[in-house]
Amino acid sequence: MTQIRKHKVGVIGCGYWGTNLVRNFRESPRADLLVVADSDEKRLERVIKLYFNVAVTRDWRDVVDNPLVEVVAIATPVSNHFEIGMAALAAGKHVLMAKPMAASSEQCKRLMDAARKADRTLIVDHTFVYTDAVRKIHDIVAAGELGKILYYDSTRINLGLFQTDSSVVWDLAVHDLAIIDYLFGRRPTAVSCIAAGHVEGSPENIAFITLFFPDGAIAHVNVNWMSPVKVRQILIGGDKKMIIFDDVEPTEKIRIYDRGVAASTDKDHMYRQLMTYRIGGVEIPALPGNEALKTEFNHFFDCIEQGKQPITDAASGLRTVQILEAINLSIAQRGRAVDLPQEAGGGHAFADLPPAASQAGRF
Amino acid sequence: MTQIRKHKVGVIGCGYWGTNLVRNFRESPRADLLVVADSDEKRLERVIKLYFNVAVTRDWRDVVDNPLVEVVAIATPVSNHFEIGMAALAAGKHVLMAKPMAASSEQCKRLMDAARKADRTLIVDHTFVYTDAVRKIHDIVAAGELGKILYYDSTRINLGLFQTDSSVVWDLAVHDLAIIDYLFGRRPTAVSCIAAGHVEGSPENIAFITLFFPDGAIAHVNVNWMSPVKVRQILIGGDKKMIIFDDVEPTEKIRIYDRGVAASTDKDHMYRQLMTYRIGGVEIPALPGNEALKTEFNHFFDCIEQGKQPITDAASGLRTVQILEAINLSIAQRGRAVDLPQEAGGGHAFADLPPAASQAGRF
Amino acid sequence: MTQIRKHKVGVIGCGYWGTNLVRNFRESPRADLLVVADSDEKRLERVIKLYFNVAVTRDWRDVVDNPLVEVVAIATPVSNHFEIGMAALAAGKHVLMAKPMAASSEQCKRLMDAARKADRTLIVDHTFVYTDAVRKIHDIVAAGELGKILYYDSTRINLGLFQTDSSVVWDLAVHDLAIIDYLFGRRPTAVSCIAAGHVEGSPENIAFITLFFPDGAIAHVNVNWMSPVKVRQILIGGDKKMIIFDDVEPTEKIRIYDRGVAASTDKDHMYRQLMTYRIGGVEIPALPGNEALKTEFNHFFDCIEQGKQPITDAASGLRTVQILEAINLSIAQRGRAVDLPQEAGGGHAFADLPPAASQAGRF
Amino acid sequence: MTQIRKHKVGVIGCGYWGTNLVRNFRESPRADLLVVADSDEKRLERVIKLYFNVAVTRDWRDVVDNPLVEVVAIATPVSNHFEIGMAALAAGKHVLMAKPMAASSEQCKRLMDAARKADRTLIVDHTFVYTDAVRKIHDIVAAGELGKILYYDSTRINLGLFQTDSSVVWDLAVHDLAIIDYLFGRRPTAVSCIAAGHVEGSPENIAFITLFFPDGAIAHVNVNWMSPVKVRQILIGGDKKMIIFDDVEPTEKIRIYDRGVAASTDKDHMYRQLMTYRIGGVEIPALPGNEALKTEFNHFFDCIEQGKQPITDAASGLRTVQILEAINLSIAQRGRAVDLPQEAGGGHAFADLPPAASQAGRF
Repeated sequence: MTQIRKHKVGVIGCGYWGTNLVRNFRESPRADLLVVADSDEKRLERVIKLYFNVAVTRDWRDVVDNPLVEVVAIATPVSNHFEIGMAALAAGKHVLMAKPMAASSEQCKRLMDAARKADRTLIVDHTFVYTDAVRKIHDIVAAGELGKILYYDSTRINLGLFQTDSSVVWDLAVHDLAIIDYLFGRRPTAVSCIAAGHVEGSPENIAFITLFFPDGAIAHVNVNWMSPVKVRQILIGGDKKMIIFDDVEPTEKIRIYDRGVAASTDKDHMYRQLMTYRIGGVEIPALPGNEALKTEFNHFFDCIEQGKQPITDAASGLRTVQILEAINLSIAQRGRAVDLPQEAGGGHAFADLPPAASQAGRF
Repeated sequence: MTQIRKHKVGVIGCGYWGTNLVRNFRESPRADLLVVADSDEKRLERVIKLYFNVAVTRDWRDVVDNPLVEVVAIATPVSNHFEIGMAALAAGKHVLMAKPMAASSEQCKRLMDAARKADRTLIVDHTFVYTDAVRKIHDIVAAGELGKILYYDSTRINLGLFQTDSSVVWDLAVHDLAIIDYLFGRRPTAVSCIAAGHVEGSPENIAFITLFFPDGAIAHVNVNWMSPVKVRQILIGGDKKMIIFDDVEPTEKIRIYDRGVAASTDKDHMYRQLMTYRIGGVEIPALPGNEALKTEFNHFFDCIEQGKQPITDAASGLRTVQILEAINLSIAQRGRAVDLPQEAGGGHAFADLPPAASQAGRF
Repeated sequence: MTQIRKHKVGVIGCGYWGTNLVRNFRESPRADLLVVADSDEKRLERVIKLYFNVAVTRDWRDVVDNPLVEVVAIATPVSNHFEIGMAALAAGKHVLMAKPMAASSEQCKRLMDAARKADRTLIVDHTFVYTDAVRKIHDIVAAGELGKILYYDSTRINLGLFQTDSSVVWDLAVHDLAIIDYLFGRRPTAVSCIAAGHVEGSPENIAFITLFFPDGAIAHVNVNWMSPVKVRQILIGGDKKMIIFDDVEPTEKIRIYDRGVAASTDKDHMYRQLMTYRIGGVEIPALPGNEALKTEFNHFFDCIEQGKQPITDAASGLRTVQILEAINLSIAQRGRAVDLPQEAGGGHAFADLPPAASQAGRF
Repeated sequence: MTQIRKHKVGVIGCGYWGTNLVRNFRESPRADLLVVADSDEKRLERVIKLYFNVAVTRDWRDVVDNPLVEVVAIATPVSNHFEIGMAALAAGKHVLMAKPMAASSEQCKRLMDAARKADRTLIVDHTFVYTDAVRKIHDIVAAGELGKILYYDSTRINLGLFQTDSSVVWDLAVHDLAIIDYLFGRRPTAVSCIAAGHVEGSPENIAFITLFFPDGAIAHVNVNWMSPVKVRQILIGGDKKMIIFDDVEPTEKIRIYDRGVAASTDKDHMYRQLMTYRIGGVEIPALPGNEALKTEFNHFFDCIEQGKQPITDAASGLRTVQILEAINLSIAQRGRAVDLPQEAGGGHAFADLPPAASQAGRF
């Protein structure tokens, strides 16, 4: 039996999400959490109270400069991602970067370059990609079970925490952009977004995003921080089958509908051409019940140890931020479609990934 | 006790919706169904089998020319609305026109003028306006219970009947346009729509529509004929309360959430400004259980007898078709926002209708 | 192509259920509805208004004595079933008898004998047996998919119509007794029932029934006319799989859970022996969408034409009424278990019907 | 500002539930957790790993004999409750006893006496009584909002952990017995229970319990460890209003239905006497979101400091165990109703507690 290698980790930023990272690094048998940094002393006190044997500091540079630390996880506001990420890579650390990867595509590109030159692993924490549910959907899509993908339609609404530094798009919709990037492996050609802010001094709290794909497929994302109820639902329509992913359901998260549509002629209705729609059964697969961060950390450590590229690598982080930038442009023009750059990788076909490509995309 | 006046009715078009009209006119104590026209003989045979004492004809002109007929209900494809409607008004008939009112705003205007000149009542069959649920929501909005209206968000999806002559927008979204027109009594200033068709030779089967209102309110409508499940859900967010109208629920259709959001400062979170959101209870009002067409017909007959203007009059039909036309323009430009004409009436304020205005809007 | 034989039908009793029978006989291509009897003139007027060409009468004997009538459907209060049924059989008619079959097991036996001697088909209208959902469950049980049946647990509650002549047991629970009789094809050995009435002068409106089976299986039925919500849910637990039948769901009525339990030892828990429970996926089969009465009538006419015994024959009606009688005894003794007679047929094994027996039980 | 008094606590038994107690004592500002005992070393290691500064021991007597400990919480198997509880009281400790209080009513009585003589507080950990939802329902019942209580109907089923030392009745149904004792404050006169075990060597895993109340009210409890789905639902029917408590719902746990039934005569239906049932709206009150154990511990510490009797005192524990004993008797006789002893306190009226009594019952 081989020895498990323990990766020495420092976490920078210990707000809502950083706290999750800290807990999961603590529980991982492959990690050794050395130090946590945050500018807020109260948060550090909480860390001290919960975990003995973890150093804390108010200065993130203490983490980056610590020669024992091999891995730096960055969960600060997005405005600091670039500076801290560049410093960590310069110091030879592997980096786990909270989403979105950085405040601009320019920053993403420079981080991607820096990681390549330093030969360090940079993973973007697109957590949803590592959930059992999204991985299962990926397998189904990749196996061609849905047929040709026609649409992706996500509703991600709740009575939410408003943030001063981030709109509902940069905070919530980024999840869908990452899921779409992973599931379909093909770039949208353009994006349109209409958004509105209802609280003075706060960024947009409601937004409707549409992504255009070259083959006529369309993706829609409805995000809203002012909904009285929490909805986390994604519909994926193919011409053979359709999926509903309901993340509010405790266990029955994915439903696969054996339903499709095909043209037909109905002689009984003069001016109404009926489509015959096939209504088969529904299947709810059992999911294994893994915690997403645990899966993600294992993948991250595998990539570090084997020199592999992560599924959610810097290129995927860049593609996502490029869309966020285009969304900002579109919002300013009341939803005018903005074309998306096509150079940044992500090459496989939208609907019918061959199993091989699928295997390549597995971890 | 006064004698009930029986209105002599002819119905033109006896497909899916016309059959509903026929049944409801038959059951109304205030109507006397004389004749039904349809170009399809099979449909006429069905009418004969179900109802004795009703004449049938393949030529709609027989209905319009029948001197006994006082009221003509038109449920043909929208392309025929204008010609038949003009003929009926010219013959001195009152007209119930299926939605959408006509194929163009120009046609709507001419029908509106013709009705005014002939001094006949023209009602547009925006059926949803006459449901118990929408009337209840109207009262709540008009009473100011929701506070300032922030958004309207409708999802109207199912595995649907495709039509050769009508897109999902003209068929399904028109319901939301009529509901919005009735509920808020204020015109949107612009509309954006992105749509896609996935069946060759068929019109669009999926569409995302956004309406802009002058005060920053926003309305969004998601219509889709290729969803594996049927959803009929409308969220209305106000800054005091919020409503969910779920029309798939058999009885508990409206839920009023005592929930809102207000800015606050959270000293514990350095870079995150928290909004305090108030979470009160939920109220599900009992609804009386009236059939919408029965309510609509009673209102129609009241308007005829008392010379009143219907709630869903020609002006509301025109406003709806104007938006449909702008939607077509926007679709052709991948969602570019198209400004809407503002002249066609509909004047009261969006969010805070005074009770008086509300009473005026009641029937 | 063979000529369809039209069975000439008379319906006696035209209340809530009789009206359903009338409509379905009218719509059946294999029936010719000649005459409807009811002592209430108002109901007869309704029949006349809805259907031309149907004779009506206030005297049920007119139906029985009518030489043209071949089939008599009896939907009167249960107290009249015996008298009318005996008269119809004596007149050589085939009989469809509403549930429960008669007011006592003695009456059931005499009806059964009379039908046998007259060589006429007597079907008991246990409608649920003919629903797509129950037939599908029958097939699953018969194929052994659930493994050994452990329990049947039904909740059948709503805010109901109280009846002066029938308790919630004789009105609602009888559905479960018929379903159990059909699904498991094996007699319970005893029954216990606790019931309560909360309205003076009215029979019991809430009851909890338990049936004991020889192999340790148990069936429980919770019926209640005073529930604020309508629930129609049956759980069937096997040691391999389990089923939930939710009849309030419009389409997804049956869910098959790939879940079971097996003993195991857990060394980590000293005094707690853990069962390993297997949690697989869920399957929701598509159902064809047949109307139950249509299926039942076709089966009835097949039996008449081919001299077959109906699935819900007089013996099944008798078994059901025997249980109802035992329930009455048990109620009077606060739930003491009352043994059930075992002679009246129904022989196949409870849990593991062989496919052959299953085929025999199909129609 | 007064100093908060810190109660020094020892916990005996650190399985599933004991772990919960440990965590909550650790988090309570009014408790100081000194020591944890368990015979299983593995569990103690887990405690050490999670909490520094807590002593552990394999011998429960170390806790009872520790002179610093003021409060002993006992979460061992029920067979040990009596011995440990008596020793703790003899040592002058206050006692928190997991449910059910002891293995027999005789043991309960002796524990009750011992606590009285030692002048120590003994609270039975009927946790559900301290949930926001049950407290809210208590207030509604006590205020008479439901009118006369007609029935209580609980379904508490899931795919459960089987236990060697406890049946589904002693493990799950005890929750309902405690809730009923608290809500209605009146003793049932008899109980009937039918139960079955489907795993060799394991106790009953499915049971149907019915409690009889003197005024005709009835309580029913359906518990099952072999259900494929988790249901936690209680219906409470009054003649004015009705409540559904759905504990699986994350926030909308209580629904108050403004629904009732009253006798009427329907002239249109000859043999069917209709009850008019009133269908008003539904109200879903907001709940504060307190953790039940936190509320319970605060109440416990208040009782210790002020010499008050806890809501869930030894008498309530005794009444619950008396019913459990009677249930065992009834199971052995296939559900024969067993009369319940009436002496052990619990005096206020079932349905219409006056507000004063209600205040007395509040904490």
